[in-house]
Formats: sequence, C-alpha cells, structure tokens
Amino acid sequence: MVDKNILETFENPCPKRDYEVLIVQPEFTSVCPKTGHPDFGTIEIRYHPKEKCVELKSLKIYLQGYRNEGIFYERAVNRIMDDISSVVEPKFMEIIGRFTARGGITTSVKVQYQGE
Amino acid sequence: MVDKNILETFENPCPKRDYEVLIVQPEFTSVCPKTGHPDFGTIEIRYHPKEKCVELKSLKIYLQGYRNEGIFYERAVNRIMDDISSVVEPKFMEIIGRFTARGGITTSVKVQYQGE
Amino acid sequence: MVDKNILETFENPCPKRDYEVLIVQPEFTSVCPKTGHPDFGTIEIRYHPKEKCVELKSLKIYLQGYRNEGIFYERAVNRIMDDISSVVEPKFMEIIGRFTARGGITTSVKVQYQGE
Amino acid sequence: MVDKNILETFENPCPKRDYEVLIVQPEFTSVCPKTGHPDFGTIEIRYHPKEKCVELKSLKIYLQGYRNEGIFYERAVNRIMDDISSVVEPKFMEIIGRFTARGGITTSVKVQYQGE
Amino acid sequence: MVDKNILETFENPCPKRDYEVLIVQPEFTSVCPKTGHPDFGTIEIRYHPKEKCVELKSLKIYLQGYRNEGIFYERAVNRIMDDISSVVEPKFMEIIGRFTARGGITTSVKVQYQGE
Amino acid sequence: MVDKNILETFENPCPKRDYEVLIVQPEFTSVCPKTGHPDFGTIEIRYHPKEKCVELKSLKIYLQGYRNEGIFYERAVNRIMDDISSVVEPKFMEIIGRFTARGGITTSVKVQYQGE
Amino acid sequence: MVDKNILETFENPCPKRDYEVLIVQPEFTSVCPKTGHPDFGTIEIRYHPKEKCVELKSLKIYLQGYRNEGIFYERAVNRIMDDISSVVEPKFMEIIGRFTARGGITTSVKVQYQGE
Amino acid sequence: MVDKNILETFENPCPKRDYEVLIVQPEFTSVCPKTGHPDFGTIEIRYHPKEKCVELKSLKIYLQGYRNEGIFYERAVNRIMDDISSVVEPKFMEIIGRFTARGGITTSVKVQYQGE
Amino acid sequence: MVDKNILETFENPCPKRDYEVLIVQPEFTSVCPKTGHPDFGTIEIRYHPKEKCVELKSLKIYLQGYRNEGIFYERAVNRIMDDISSVVEPKFMEIIGRFTARGGITTSVKVQYQGE
Amino acid sequence: MVDKNILETFENPCPKRDYEVLIVQPEFTSVCPKTGHPDFGTIEIRYHPKEKCVELKSLKIYLQGYRNEGIFYERAVNRIMDDISSVVEPKFMEIIGRFTARGGITTSVKVQYQGE
Repeated sequence: MVDKNILETFENPCPKRDYEVLIVQPEFTSVCPKTGHPDFGTIEIRYHPKEKCVELKSLKIYLQGYRNEGIFYERAVNRIMDDISSVVEPKFMEIIGRFTARGGITTSVKVQYQGE
Repeated sequence: MVDKNILETFENPCPKRDYEVLIVQPEFTSVCPKTGHPDFGTIEIRYHPKEKCVELKSLKIYLQGYRNEGIFYERAVNRIMDDISSVVEPKFMEIIGRFTARGGITTSVKVQYQGE
Repeated sequence: MVDKNILETFENPCPKRDYEVLIVQPEFTSVCPKTGHPDFGTIEIRYHPKEKCVELKSLKIYLQGYRNEGIFYERAVNRIMDDISSVVEPKFMEIIGRFTARGGITTSVKVQYQGE
Repeated sequence: MVDKNILETFENPCPKRDYEVLIVQPEFTSVCPKTGHPDFGTIEIRYHPKEKCVELKSLKIYLQGYRNEGIFYERAVNRIMDDISSVVEPKFMEIIGRFTARGGITTSVKVQYQGE
Repeated sequence: MVDKNILETFENPCPKRDYEVLIVQPEFTSVCPKTGHPDFGTIEIRYHPKEKCVELKSLKIYLQGYRNEGIFYERAVNRIMDDISSVVEPKFMEIIGRFTARGGITTSVKVQYQGE
Repeated sequence: MVDKNILETFENPCPKRDYEVLIVQPEFTSVCPKTGHPDFGTIEIRYHPKEKCVELKSLKIYLQGYRNEGIFYERAVNRIMDDISSVVEPKFMEIIGRFTARGGITTSVKVQYQGE
Repeated sequence: MVDKNILETFENPCPKRDYEVLIVQPEFTSVCPKTGHPDFGTIEIRYHPKEKCVELKSLKIYLQGYRNEGIFYERAVNRIMDDISSVVEPKFMEIIGRFTARGGITTSVKVQYQGE
Repeated sequence: MVDKNILETFENPCPKRDYEVLIVQPEFTSVCPKTGHPDFGTIEIRYHPKEKCVELKSLKIYLQGYRNEGIFYERAVNRIMDDISSVVEPKFMEIIGRFTARGGITTSVKVQYQGE
Repeated sequence: MVDKNILETFENPCPKRDYEVLIVQPEFTSVCPKTGHPDFGTIEIRYHPKEKCVELKSLKIYLQGYRNEGIFYERAVNRIMDDISSVVEPKFMEIIGRFTARGGITTSVKVQYQGE
Repeated sequence: MVDKNILETFENPCPKRDYEVLIVQPEFTSVCPKTGHPDFGTIEIRYHPKEKCVELKSLKIYLQGYRNEGIFYERAVNRIMDDISSVVEPKFMEIIGRFTARGGITTSVKVQYQGE
C-alpha cells in the first residue's frame, strides 16, 4: 500500500545554490481500478531542493507501494506530487507519468508544484 | 460514423491544480473523400482539465468512428477539437494529427483551443 | 470484403534470372472477431517471381479488403499467402504480419511457400 | 500465483503449413526472492504451432501470475517454457526473457524446446 | 518547368480558428546550374491558413516542376515561398529546404512570410 | 537516356585477392511509366572485381540517365545489372534497389550475378 | 583524491567575444558512500569564458580524482562547480551530471553559476 | 594554410527577405598544436545573408586549409568566424565546432556574430 | 585486486535443458598499464550452464576488482574468461569486451570457451 | 607518408586460445589522386592473433600516414591489409574501409586474409 511516511530526506548539501535534480523511475506499475489488469509507466520527478533532498532508496520503496494499488493515471500522478512535495518541501517540483499503451492509446500526465 | 455523444468524462480528481494530460492514438484511420483510399495517422491530444477529464475507452471508440468516414485532414482535426473540447470543456487543449505519406508527401495539422 | 480476384499480375521482365522482390505495406488493418475493435499491422511480402509479378496497385486494393473483415492474426496471414501465391505462382514466397500491441502484447506471424 | 491451467488454446487454422508465431510481452514483472524487490523484463515467445495455438488473453493472464511470485530469472524462463510447451505442444518453441539492469548488470535467458 | 499557375487551393474549413498545417516533401530534386548534376532535398512547408488551404496534389506537381530546372538552393527556396504565399495568402508561412551533401557539405535554407 | 557506353572501368589494383566493393547511390530517380510521376530510390551495388573496377564518376552519370526514363522497378534493377555486369565482368555482383513508398507501399528488388 | 589545484587554464584567445564552450566527459566514476559500490555517469560542462579557458588534459585528471572518492551525486556536481568556477572565473557556467541507474532509478543533477 | 582570400561570395538572390542559411561540414580536420596528432570535427555555419551569400565550393576549400594547421579548438572556431563574417558581412552568423573525443572527452565551441 | 575466489555459483535449476544466459555489464573500468589513465568498457558474458550458474552479485564484485588494476584489453578479457569458466564450468562460454575510444580508436576483444 | 615500419607488435598474451580483436578507426583521411580533395572514412580491422598483437598507438600513427597520400579507395584498403598482415602475421584478418559520400555516392571496400 502507498505510505508517504516511508519517504526519507537528507539535508541539501548546497542550500545557497538554486539547482535541479531529475529522478527517473521507468519501472512503475499499478493496477487499473476498472479492469484489474496491471498498468506500467515511467515516473519522472524534477525538483529544486530548498532545505531537503529526497533519499533515493526510500523513494523507490514508496513508489513500489503502488504495485497492487487500484488507481487511475490522473489520480496517481497527483497523489505522488502531494506526498513527495509535502515531505521534501522543494522550491519547485514537476512530476510526469508516462504510461504504456492501452487499446493502442498512450497517456501521460504532468503536474507542477511551486513552493513559497 | 462519428458521434460526439459517445464521449464520456469523469470528474477531475485534482481540480485545484493546473496540470496536463497527453493522449496519443497512433492507430487513427479515415477515408480520403477524393480517392476513396484509406488514410492513416496519429492523433495527439494535450489538455489541461478544468472540471472534467475525458474517459479513455470512450475516446478510443469515438476516434474509431472516423474509420469509414470520408474527410480531409484539415477538417478531421478541427472536428475532433470541436467535439472533444465541447464535451470536456478544458482550460486549454491542443490537437495534432500527423498523417502518413501520400504521393511521397507527409502532412500534419495542429489546432489549439483556449477555454475561458 | 477480401477478394483474391482483385489481384493482378504482369509478366516477369527477367524470367531467366532468379531474383527477389520485397513489398512492405505498413498500413494493414482488420477487425478483431472477438472484440470488434480494429487491429493494425505491417504486412511484408518477399518473393522470387517465376513467370508473373504481382501488380502493386491491385495488391494494395486486395489488402484494403481486410479493413472491415473480422479475422484472427494467424488466419489472416495464412489466407494472404494462399491468395497471393495461387495467383502469382512464385518460386518462393514469405509473408510476415507484424501486428501492434494489444493488452501490452505484440504478435507477429511468418509463413513460407515453396513453389514446385 | 502462477497457474498453467489458465492457459487456453485454439485450433491451428492452418495445420498443414509450417509457420512461426512470435509473441512479445514487454510488461513482465516478478519479485526477487533474495531482496523482495520487484524485477522487470520482456518475455519473447517464438513457436511453430502443430495442432494448437496459444490464446493471447489467457497467456497475458498466465504471465500476470508471476507479479507477486518470488523467482530467479533462470527458473522463471524455464518454468514458462515448461508450462506453455506442455499445453500448446508445438513443433518448436523458443522463449527469451530480457530483464532490466540490477546493480548495473543486465541479464537475459534463452531456452528452446523441440517437439517430437 | 516551374509554373505557379498549377497551384490550386480549397476553402479553409475552419477560418475562425488560427491553426497550423505542416507539409513535408522529401523527394524534391532540381539541377545545379553550375555543374548540371542533379540536386536532392526535402522541402518543409509550415503555414497558418487564412481563407485558403493549398491542395496537396497540385503542390506535388508544382514542386515536380523543378526536376529539370537549373537553380541555386537559396533562389529555389525563396521562389517556392513567393509562389505559394502569393496563391495561398496565409497568415504565416515558413519554408525550409534541406539539401543532401555536395563535396561533403550539407546546406539548408529557411525563409518566413508574415501575412497582413 | 540510359547509355551503358558511359560506364568506364579501371584496372583492379589487387587482382590476386578476392575482395568486395560496395557502392550506394541514395539519389536514384526515374519516372513511373504508368502515372508519369517520378519514382525515388537507393541503388546498392556489391561486387567482387576480377580484372576491372567500375569508375565511380561514370557510374554516377550512367545512373543519372534514368532520371527521365519511364521504367518499372523490376525492369530497372535488372537492366542496371545487365549493363554494369557486362562492362565490369566481375566474379560476383549483387544489386538492390530500395524504392520509396507509393500508396503507402514500399518495394525493393534484389538481383545477383555469378561470373564464370 | 580530488584536488582543484590540478586544474590549469590558458588565456582566452578571443576575450572580446561572448562565446560558449561545451565539454562532455562520459567516463566519470566515483564511489557510493553508503554501499561502497562504484557509481558511473556523464559530466557536461557548458561555460562562457571571460579571461581564462580550462585546459582539457588537466580537467580530465581533475575529474579522475573522484574515482575512489565516496560522494553523493548532489554533492559531487556542486563540488565540481565550486572548484572549476573558482579557477576559471567564467561569465557563466552550467554543469550537469547524468548518472546511470541504481535500483532501476536514474538521477541527474544540474547546477548553474553566474559570474559578476 | 588558411587563407581567407579564397572565400568567394555571390549576390543574395532575395535581399529584401530576412532568411537563414545553414551549412554543415562534417569533414573538418586540423592538427593539435600540443601533440601533433590530427583533430576531427564538424563545422556548422548558420547565417542570415545581407547583400552576399558565401559560395560553397570556395568555403569547402577555405576549410580544407586547416588540414595541416596546428590550432586549438577555441581559436579555430573564432578564426573561422572572423574570416567568414568579414567577407560575407551577414546580418547574423553563428558557428559551432563539434570535435570528436580526445581522452574520452568531447568538446564543442559556439560563437555568434551580430552585424550592424 | 582481481580475485576469482569471490565468484559464487548456484545450482542450475534446469540442468537437463541446454539454454543460454547472457549477462551485460556496461560499467567495467580498469587502468591502462602504459599511461595510468582509466579505461572503460562493456563486458558481455554469454554461456550455456552445465551444473552451475554464476551468481550475479558475486560476478559484479569480481568485475569491480579490475577498477584499479593495470591491464591490457587483450589480457583482461582472456583473464575474465579463465576465471569465470574455471569456476562455472559451463558447456559453452563467450566473452566480449567492448572498450571506449582511445586516440579516436575503438577496440573490442572476443574469446570463446568450449567445455568438454 | 605511409610507412609500415612504424607498426609495432606485442606478444599475444593468450596464444593457445583462438580469439578475435576488432579495432575501429573512424578518423581515417587521405587525398583523392584525381581531384586533390581530401577523402574521409572509417577503417575496421578484425583479426585473430597468432603470436603477435598489433600495438594500438603505432597503428594509429601508421594510419595517420595516409593523411596527405593521394590514393584510391580500392588500393588503400588493400595496401593497409598487405602492411598490417605482413607485420602481425595473424591467423585471419578482415579489413573494411567505409568512405563518406562523394557526388552523393558512398563506397566501402572489404578485404580478407587467411594465414597459414
């Protein structure tokens, strides 16, 4: 199950500089709530750290939590944004989910977050 | 035949956030009204949902409606925009049709819609 | 509907030489007999002409005949082989159908024909 | 769980001709029995049908059965071969599993089956 | 010979919307006025129709008119722009000619037109 | 017009060794005898020289001779073989013509020649 | 060990012109401070020289200094920026580190520097 | 040796229109002044002609002049800009030199010129 | 340092079937014994297991042992073959080392082993 | 000038095993004896060492000797084979020269050598 408490952070090693981190997880999978069949996709997370950086191993385990979760694409990407941005509190974050074809049709969802 | 009443929507799961959905259907086909031969192409739909999201299965069936329809490229892409934007009422929508070569010549058509 | 009588041939311009012709049609479409949804694929035809060559325009129209035909992949490729080989009577013919993904799974079928 | 009884077949539509079917499932996932982390890969199945062809939907569900199964690459590919070849009884079958990188290292496993 | 009177147009099916049409002809050929050897290239035409759209078949025949014409790259692309823009009277038009290597050197020419 | 007398040769610089020369001309064009429209393609010539090698500049001009010739694909490739092999008298020669799509369909023709 | 004193510069040959130099080192390697396993990546350095240009051989040796250094991605890229920008004193510098996948997840870090 | 007097121009065929010419020479070679070993690269020249266009054959011979010249990347690209821009007097010119890897490291240099 | 005793094996899960395992490590690095500079490459190991399979984690650590080893390409690949084949005792093994360019030149080494 | 005495060898580190070395030099250049313009190409050398391996640095300098040599493609590749095979005395050697396009036409030459 999806649990945002799994997410860990570490102190930004260079908080004075505005810089960008890009993390790509091409092995995301969840379950379609309509058909019960698995969905597959790539999750891209691009952010500018403020005081914290997301720890990669905990992020991987957090994303594995969707493996047996029934969830639509639009909701999944928005939820990942809500969870990670509330823990990392970045200056800026963008998350793109690119999902593999279903019925010949490919879908992707892109959300952005602007910190104060 | 093409019927916009086939299109279904579901409630935007995150209406407060401005985000983007991209849907790609590489298996679009219609018929050339001049020669009667089939045309083939890819339809890309990029939009920012307001209150509604387009349901993918109904979109697929709506686009299948062009299969035996005689229609020019320019009219087809504009009509797809008219039909989907009137049902989904997005903040923004862009549709690109990329058609395969005829007589060695490749054509694509790009239209945009700006909601109020 | 599929009609092998549409297929036309012309006289092999160089019958003394053993040579190979390869024809690729990436715009093949038929209908799944189970779901009623359209299938898409590429048909590759490789043959060594004996006395006759297949005429390209008639081949294109013959393959268009599958557009609204409900037929499985395995049967479609075998039927295309039966129809074309009986009309062209080549020394050798190989036909490969490469179909686009359904349920994430891609399928192709390859058949061969050896003339006397 | 993995259950070979899920696999269905249909009658070979052209049993007199020796031909080849290639099925590619790029969305295979299982679980590493050592670490508990998910593994991802592509399964390619190439076979020459004798009296039966494998039904694609049942094959998809059969392969989904590995989703929460702890199993090594070498055993998984050999087991898929044992299960499918015993149900389909083909003239020839080859299965290749291509797995994504772990610790920077990519692995694939290829097995073959020769019917009587 | 090059004759702009060959170019035909049809009425823009959606004159209220500002949209873009992209036409790519990868089979352009003319003759080098210096050496007499043939030149080869791709012509890309991107435009926003006002009241008229260019008819594709007539465009193809118009471009074939350069086949035995001795003309430099810079002049050819500017002339294609003069001819098509005067007939189609678009809101905006961009034409790019990408020519194949001569003496190891590749050249392309890009011109733009802004309607009133 | 096509004239095999244009073809020149030079003495094989290493007649004792059996080796291979591959020449690729991606700028071949002729005219369809049915429609009068230009055809485009790539000509690949692979040969093992005996006493003579084909001179490249004369080969280029020979192939340019097809520019305004109405000829079918099958006949063109066979004629190129007849002309070049009779002038160069190689140990072995293979010629492949790969032509661009017409009506969505791509064709290629491959012929071989075995010297005494 | 990492030593910024290794870095050498040479006089900018064209100090009046604002121009850009891009250096790509695809053979960067360091050690993960957590697991002790080696990390691999590509370092891209894009800068506008003021009075000095970085000497390539010394840059190569400087970057080799990370080979047995235990350091996180975010810190490594920020440190490379601190070291090179303090020695070269450019008008502008951007450094991107693109690291290979670990646990299926790919990471890159992008930092910028604006000189006075 | 490098001689800018080799460069020839011809009259811009369309001086009223602002347009762009892009010339790519992938066969540039010079000599490293440090090691004496040859360097290889691609030179891209993008410009907007004012009254003159650069003649391609003379440009090719001008660039061949660097073949046995010992010169650093940064100086070479700046010198090519100085020479060509002073002869062609364009509205705008950009030159990029992309050099092949040395010691695993790839370098490119980009300079721009703004005419009055 | 390189230590073949690090290599571990596990029992072949399907010893009756002749099958192939392919392992690709794109992150191989060693040191040039002449210059002291690091070398980079990809190691491909293809084998048919007899009674044992090589354990991946131990293989990864074994290959990491070359990180600070001064060794020529030809010797490295032959040594990897000697070490792994003596531990795994396969029916057949092929190892290819593909190394990145040095002085513009790329090298690869391929060795094979045939078990009794 | 081309001097085969520059070529150095070192002792084959594994003379008992039959293995293959592949060396690719993509930066080969010579001069066309007809036009005086430079030619560019890639030289691939594949061989099975007997008692000696070719030393890479000397090979690089040997190939640089062609830089200002006027020589035809067919002769150049045959001469490289004669020189290297006589110095290295391999079990087997194959050399392929792939040259860049001239007049739109690309040429490659492949020669083989079989040791006693």
